[in-house]
Amino acid sequence: MADNDMEAAATAGVLVIGDEILSGRTKDRNIGTIADRLTEVGVDLKEVRIVGDETAAIVDAVNSLRTRYTYVFTTGGIGPTHDDITVDCIARAIGRNVIEDPRAVALMTTALAARGLELTAARRRMTRMPEGSELLIAPQSGAPGFRVENIFVMAGVPTIMEEMLLGATEALRQNTQITTLTIALWRPESDIADLLAAHQKLFADVAMGSYPAFVNGQYRTELVLRSRNTERLTQAHEALVTQLETRGLMTSQCT
Amino acid sequence: MADNDMEAAATAGVLVIGDEILSGRTKDRNIGTIADRLTEVGVDLKEVRIVGDETAAIVDAVNSLRTRYTYVFTTGGIGPTHDDITVDCIARAIGRNVIEDPRAVALMTTALAARGLELTAARRRMTRMPEGSELLIAPQSGAPGFRVENIFVMAGVPTIMEEMLLGATEALRQNTQITTLTIALWRPESDIADLLAAHQKLFADVAMGSYPAFVNGQYRTELVLRSRNTERLTQAHEALVTQLETRGLMTSQCT
Repeated sequence: MADNDMEAAATAGVLVIGDEILSGRTKDRNIGTIADRLTEVGVDLKEVRIVGDETAAIVDAVNSLRTRYTYVFTTGGIGPTHDDITVDCIARAIGRNVIEDPRAVALMTTALAARGLELTAARRRMTRMPEGSELLIAPQSGAPGFRVENIFVMAGVPTIMEEMLLGATEALRQNTQITTLTIALWRPESDIADLLAAHQKLFADVAMGSYPAFVNGQYRTELVLRSRNTERLTQAHEALVTQLETRGLMTSQCT
Repeated sequence: MADNDMEAAATAGVLVIGDEILSGRTKDRNIGTIADRLTEVGVDLKEVRIVGDETAAIVDAVNSLRTRYTYVFTTGGIGPTHDDITVDCIARAIGRNVIEDPRAVALMTTALAARGLELTAARRRMTRMPEGSELLIAPQSGAPGFRVENIFVMAGVPTIMEEMLLGATEALRQNTQITTLTIALWRPESDIADLLAAHQKLFADVAMGSYPAFVNGQYRTELVLRSRNTERLTQAHEALVTQLETRGLMTSQCT
């Protein structure tokens, strides 16, 4: 969907932190989850970055993203070990001190006590966050994530990240959400390219994309129309179906 | 694995291009594949970015990555439709003209003829690339990717991307590859954090990471040691096992 304007909306950047993603050892599953959730609440995800566990790389990425977008979401690097340096990097990026948050200490002490465990020095590391942060609670984990300024700092373990994300994003829900309409055809993209390009020009306010796949030896193309204006979206969709019918292409629609 | 130096090696950045990834509609599978492959050939992947189908965003990202890393790999946006703008963005970033590549025209004409098809104007768009590019052939697709300067430009469809990636990376294989040794324990990270931090200080030239997971209600932690120097890696691994045995932690090793 090239260079289309949609109505102004809140935007977001995502920063995934961890050597294990860059080495291929761990396959990221958080980006897709965050992307789906932001679409659901009507926030436009504009950019994702993945960097390793290196201070300069994390600080630079945080600063790039937090100044460009309404919100930033980070995952990873908030555990108890020496390679968990996200908290210090966020604090450095925004110029705040790191403190042991008393609410986090209380939460973790209670959660650990229920399992007959104590808040050791290592676990205590997970109560550290920049001064003035709000907690992001994840019932499954004793340790919370946090929000500071426009940055949401979440765990890397997907099930825990998901709990933090739900809480973090509910309050961000936008009034007008993006609606998507899709037409899938058993045709190569090139059969539809000219028609779609002309149609995009007619409806410049509806973002149109074309997504190819190769399924069981057959070319498949999905035409995706997106807009916050459902009336214009419906008009664009109906007009596109008519165009495709005229050229006999709707007969190859995927069922 | 925080702030460790490994021996100097070739580095890489990856740029994933496509609104469909940012909206959550398509879940990226290429990043993990590229990460695995680069580890296999000994190239250090340092950063990944995902941007939408917007000229300024793509050009900026290409310029950031190509000046920082030895190689850049892009996926997506090289199809025949109006939202496929990667070729023009790469050309703009490096200041080269876009041409219809005669080798690509010949390849596509032959591939299409075998299926009784012609090189239409839309399909011809897929022969465009910056002047002076080398082709990256994908037998499964008629249309090639390309390499220009230190940038490898590949398709977004995973099976086609994989074919292009294999050809692109074989010649990049480094002499010393990174070896990885892993110890997985049924313990929370916090039980091992202090020991691992101390061990990292003893073997500063071996990168050590700790990766938590939550499996069937149990905490699981993988300790990962990585180095290009296999002798030092073996020493660090043996010493770590001894440390874990001394503390009775090896009894919780995952089988």
